[in-house]
Amino acid sequence: MDEFSLIDLITDTLGARKGAIGGVGDDAAILEVPENQQLVISTDTLVEGVHFDPGAKPADIGYKALAVNLSDLAAMGARPGWFFLALTHPALDQNWVHDFAAGLNDAAGFAGIALAGGDTTRGPLSITITACGLIDRGQAMLRSGAQPGDLIGLSGVTGLAGLALQDRLERREPAAACQVALDRPVPRLQLGQALVGFANSCIDVSDGLLADLSHVAQASRVGMKISLEDLPGTTELEQLVEEKRWNLQLGGGDDYELCFTAPPENWESISHSARKIGLRVTQIGKVIAGTGVTCLRPDGKTFAPRRSGYNHGVQRDS
Amino acid sequence: MDEFSLIDLITDTLGARKGAIGGVGDDAAILEVPENQQLVISTDTLVEGVHFDPGAKPADIGYKALAVNLSDLAAMGARPGWFFLALTHPALDQNWVHDFAAGLNDAAGFAGIALAGGDTTRGPLSITITACGLIDRGQAMLRSGAQPGDLIGLSGVTGLAGLALQDRLERREPAAACQVALDRPVPRLQLGQALVGFANSCIDVSDGLLADLSHVAQASRVGMKISLEDLPGTTELEQLVEEKRWNLQLGGGDDYELCFTAPPENWESISHSARKIGLRVTQIGKVIAGTGVTCLRPDGKTFAPRRSGYNHGVQRDS
Repeated sequence: MDEFSLIDLITDTLGARKGAIGGVGDDAAILEVPENQQLVISTDTLVEGVHFDPGAKPADIGYKALAVNLSDLAAMGARPGWFFLALTHPALDQNWVHDFAAGLNDAAGFAGIALAGGDTTRGPLSITITACGLIDRGQAMLRSGAQPGDLIGLSGVTGLAGLALQDRLERREPAAACQVALDRPVPRLQLGQALVGFANSCIDVSDGLLADLSHVAQASRVGMKISLEDLPGTTELEQLVEEKRWNLQLGGGDDYELCFTAPPENWESISHSARKIGLRVTQIGKVIAGTGVTCLRPDGKTFAPRRSGYNHGVQRDS
Repeated sequence: MDEFSLIDLITDTLGARKGAIGGVGDDAAILEVPENQQLVISTDTLVEGVHFDPGAKPADIGYKALAVNLSDLAAMGARPGWFFLALTHPALDQNWVHDFAAGLNDAAGFAGIALAGGDTTRGPLSITITACGLIDRGQAMLRSGAQPGDLIGLSGVTGLAGLALQDRLERREPAAACQVALDRPVPRLQLGQALVGFANSCIDVSDGLLADLSHVAQASRVGMKISLEDLPGTTELEQLVEEKRWNLQLGGGDDYELCFTAPPENWESISHSARKIGLRVTQIGKVIAGTGVTCLRPDGKTFAPRRSGYNHGVQRDS
């Protein structure tokens, strides 16, 4: 297929949702940002062999390429608006692109985000998506807003995607919940929007909980204490030996949960919003004066995980 | 280098120009779009072996990756604002990234555009840039605005980049002007902005003049007549046999000139603006009622070029 037919196939699958003005087809798309709102933009690349295996299903690749960007919008508290797709594929064959677009459409439909433009090229398989969202002026949650005294909250459960990845590398079939966490992570868009005005800082846990919290601690010039016994688990995680479990929960990465800090007096409101969304949020520690993130075992000793983060594209080389 | 050191190296080289709020480092960047303006967004990927040779200089790759996106903004008439970089490189080594960032900075400095975010990954070399510009509401030039009676104007000269590419494929050293056209194309940002309000449609000639004009004709539901003897040339092109010259000028691609249509009464103003910028603009034909683009030889016969466009990623396979 040539580039122009491919673009038609992708736009046909995704439909015209909210349509940018003069979108796909013109040299650039035109976006209308309503008065008193700001645009929030995130860009992320998935590369074959780094972020997914050569055997990954095209629909899962399409879904995840958009979902990881939506997760970044969620962490800022933004409402999804439009996205741009840059697809590089060795053959650009119709079946592959059809399935890829269907997965992309799953994520786009869930988030109510519209394809506004893009680019297709022949080459080694990789996908870059740039997602744009809207937020009321000055309301975005930043990494730099954490305050001593804040509670640290976490949505859902971390470690499941890392467990699925380990299983696959060791040629075991991962448990269903772990597969979903790795292949079809659900961006926490509703929670992100609900946290605006209640949380002081927020981040999505894509690099691993501890690495991402360290970014927040550094940007906010604060310290943090995490209580390992408070980290939320599931049966898949609870049957592991403690150290393996903690390593996965703190450093497994690819989790796409939101980790936020909020004053204690806001916890009840946040908890209420999360229940309405049907999402678990857990207090896992607190923000203190100082620097760095300390993880405390149930016996009160500190724990240093084997790896502090999931540094895409580097981890498998080391 | 790990991802975080790399990002530091790139941001240090590019400096903080106009800085998005909460830019590089947060999950997403926040852009402020002034009242009564719209955001114009373009995204383009360059892949090694498709858009540039494995031997290409990293600084040229960096320059061009941004320049091709700036050219898209120019075609809409937008003022450059911010850009996002997704860099995938097999080694992410410091020297390469340093030179790449220096080339990127050449283009960014020329355009006054600020790096607002991005992503780096290990993998086969490719670069996706998403560039954002601003335009007064409703003023962007679209492909769909050409009117019968419009004159067709072209900035600069097409065919030089195609000639440089041919020379390189045949292991000849291209002439200096052709090398510059291929490696360091100058996005026609000032001209694009000057055309707003005077041109009815505009496009950048990245796919080849004839292919791009066909897109305009189709989107505007008009026909076009191009006069081959009016196509601007240079000594490098004038020494070629006619057919080779026309093929390059009409279908060489990778030119990044602006091709626009405008009512005859606006030509004097456009011409005056172009002179002020120090840029040549040439009338190459006119818009008529009908469909398709017809190229007329000096003897009045029609000419059909060997290839109608530069379809990246497909051309070298066929």
